[in-house]
Amino acid sequence: MTPQTATAETETEAPLRVPVALGERSYDILIGRGLVEDAGARIAERLPRSRVAIVSDETVATHHLERLQASLEAAGVGFATILLPPGEASKRFSVYETVCDRVLEARLERNDAIVALGGGVVGDLAGFVAASVRRGMPFVQMPTTLLSQVDSSVGGKTGINVRHGKNLIGAFHQPALVLADTATLDTLPPREFRAGYAETVKYGLLGDASFFAWLEENHAAVFAGGAEREEAIAISCRAKAAIVAEDEFETGARALLNLGHTFGHALEAIVAYDGTRLVHGEGVAIGMRLAFDFSVRLGLCPPQDRDRVAAHLASVGLPTHISDIPGQMPPAESFLDIMAQDKKVSRGALTFILVRGIGDAFIERGVDPAALRDFLTDELASRS
Amino acid sequence: MTPQTATAETETEAPLRVPVALGERSYDILIGRGLVEDAGARIAERLPRSRVAIVSDETVATHHLERLQASLEAAGVGFATILLPPGEASKRFSVYETVCDRVLEARLERNDAIVALGGGVVGDLAGFVAASVRRGMPFVQMPTTLLSQVDSSVGGKTGINVRHGKNLIGAFHQPALVLADTATLDTLPPREFRAGYAETVKYGLLGDASFFAWLEENHAAVFAGGAEREEAIAISCRAKAAIVAEDEFETGARALLNLGHTFGHALEAIVAYDGTRLVHGEGVAIGMRLAFDFSVRLGLCPPQDRDRVAAHLASVGLPTHISDIPGQMPPAESFLDIMAQDKKVSRGALTFILVRGIGDAFIERGVDPAALRDFLTDELASRS
Repeated sequence: MTPQTATAETETEAPLRVPVALGERSYDILIGRGLVEDAGARIAERLPRSRVAIVSDETVATHHLERLQASLEAAGVGFATILLPPGEASKRFSVYETVCDRVLEARLERNDAIVALGGGVVGDLAGFVAASVRRGMPFVQMPTTLLSQVDSSVGGKTGINVRHGKNLIGAFHQPALVLADTATLDTLPPREFRAGYAETVKYGLLGDASFFAWLEENHAAVFAGGAEREEAIAISCRAKAAIVAEDEFETGARALLNLGHTFGHALEAIVAYDGTRLVHGEGVAIGMRLAFDFSVRLGLCPPQDRDRVAAHLASVGLPTHISDIPGQMPPAESFLDIMAQDKKVSRGALTFILVRGIGDAFIERGVDPAALRDFLTDELASRS
Repeated sequence: MTPQTATAETETEAPLRVPVALGERSYDILIGRGLVEDAGARIAERLPRSRVAIVSDETVATHHLERLQASLEAAGVGFATILLPPGEASKRFSVYETVCDRVLEARLERNDAIVALGGGVVGDLAGFVAASVRRGMPFVQMPTTLLSQVDSSVGGKTGINVRHGKNLIGAFHQPALVLADTATLDTLPPREFRAGYAETVKYGLLGDASFFAWLEENHAAVFAGGAEREEAIAISCRAKAAIVAEDEFETGARALLNLGHTFGHALEAIVAYDGTRLVHGEGVAIGMRLAFDFSVRLGLCPPQDRDRVAAHLASVGLPTHISDIPGQMPPAESFLDIMAQDKKVSRGALTFILVRGIGDAFIERGVDPAALRDFLTDELASRS
């Protein structure tokens, strides 16, 4: 083991820092091992004299809460703790209302902070609470899944789900600080790590062919937890931060981040968000392969790029075909209906992220519904 | 009747325009008679190709909804209509959730708009809905009370009440356009008009002595509905817009707008928001007189300025003493407890807006609780 990849070494090394440049709302993402233990001091430095409410879920709390609380205590930061049941079902109105109430009950003031310790569900819900209580309080993200470290903790999207769809109620609320402790990923189930890895691959596919090539080379080390893991997370965050800085409120370029997501969201909706059949990152993996395949079909992308994408995703154990999802699938029409209801619809036209090749995605606002239906019909027939 | 003040003339005149300069979030406030009839064309011009959801209450709808709907139809703007029960009780979580659901049910997209037709309750609730659905939709305010035309429609504060206090959950969400139709004030009960007038007086007291002198001179015409009414509203909006432009998120100068409000909010809380005993603007009127009196007591303000303020408020029929509120009042300690829970508390210190005279308010962040208790004890004894 060389010193560069030794775990014992990286634990004491300074974390990687990714600045997110959003004017007055700029903040830093710190990435490294041991940030839970350092959180108290870093929060006290960034938000002097603040008290905090920790929002977490019961599963994450088992692994990391005591260490976070001890770290806050050691730094003299007063705190309240609010625990949610784990799972997507917590992203709903009644839980949002309860958490708002608990934050006020703890008598937190406008300059105090909400600390989200957990994955995307905890971050999205706690972020919306932080956006809403006293019309906006400082927010610290401590993402504990690969998916939330590379995706949901960057960019300020917060929200809850309603019967009409996911994330339809929420706010753009940027964090004051993100602490991504990569040691928390050691306790992540392999399937969840893989799903997060799909979003990492996305940053290579949408704009950085050399990063995709680096992942083809180094994915084993990323999975194993070496310095390559921090590196992959930092590159992903940097890529997302650059896009978000250009388009904070998703009126333009930020749509590129939806590569694989229009298909992916439709697949998640079709399995009724049943995580035993499909989790978000798996939907994105299949969606990215579909986006490449559809682009090939439209004569936009060389077939060998699609094949490389499919091969890499499959090599780490991610699904790439709709038929990889266990259980029955409905006909192509159902996909079209669901995609037409996606909130990425604007004035009735379907917006898709298509590709000219690996590292070269673009926004196509006028996708022909007939071509899409034919493509999906063939896709559904191809492996059944 | 001279042409300058003739109602028939002003109905066809161009409305007064107050620009609110907030960079990318800048917008115009239009003030004049007949803006309900013009709303469709003006919304279509400002937000081309948008559909809208009208949010209003049942009382306001009786007077103005049909004309607004006809105006939207004439301009080719599609709309849904969502009516609330009138009254402060609609500013709560369950109504917020229902209105969000109704907006999504109407399949409004991210570029469609929420139009609030009503007073502060409708504006605050609909604004928070607009801030939250799809993480923010365009918002058009059509305030129909004097209070909302001079106060709540400027500055982007939205929110709902919870058991811990009023407006504790919400968002800063700037409107795309404000249409203040002064003809809607003709149907306002006199007591509500007076209460809104108290906020108008506030702008004179906090920073514009000549406006206060103008009001002393012209208040009858403002009440009667002449061109002076539009003028007073425009001056008030301009004053608030200047302060908001300087401090959008209330971290500094915006606190000046709370002149009279720390006392006023405490009085509202003490009567348990019973509008038969005290409405918001009446609380502000009493609160402003108390702020002047407390400032006199601290040797900061000449007593004749306090006397002028009290005399003017009383001359239009506004209450100026705690004893003007019908029913029993608790002892001074209760006021202090309630003021300590106000969200304008920062790190435990009481912040008050005090005055050096008419038109010269300032923020005092370290008010001595003992001096305040003595002042309130004497005030409560003075007229009982």
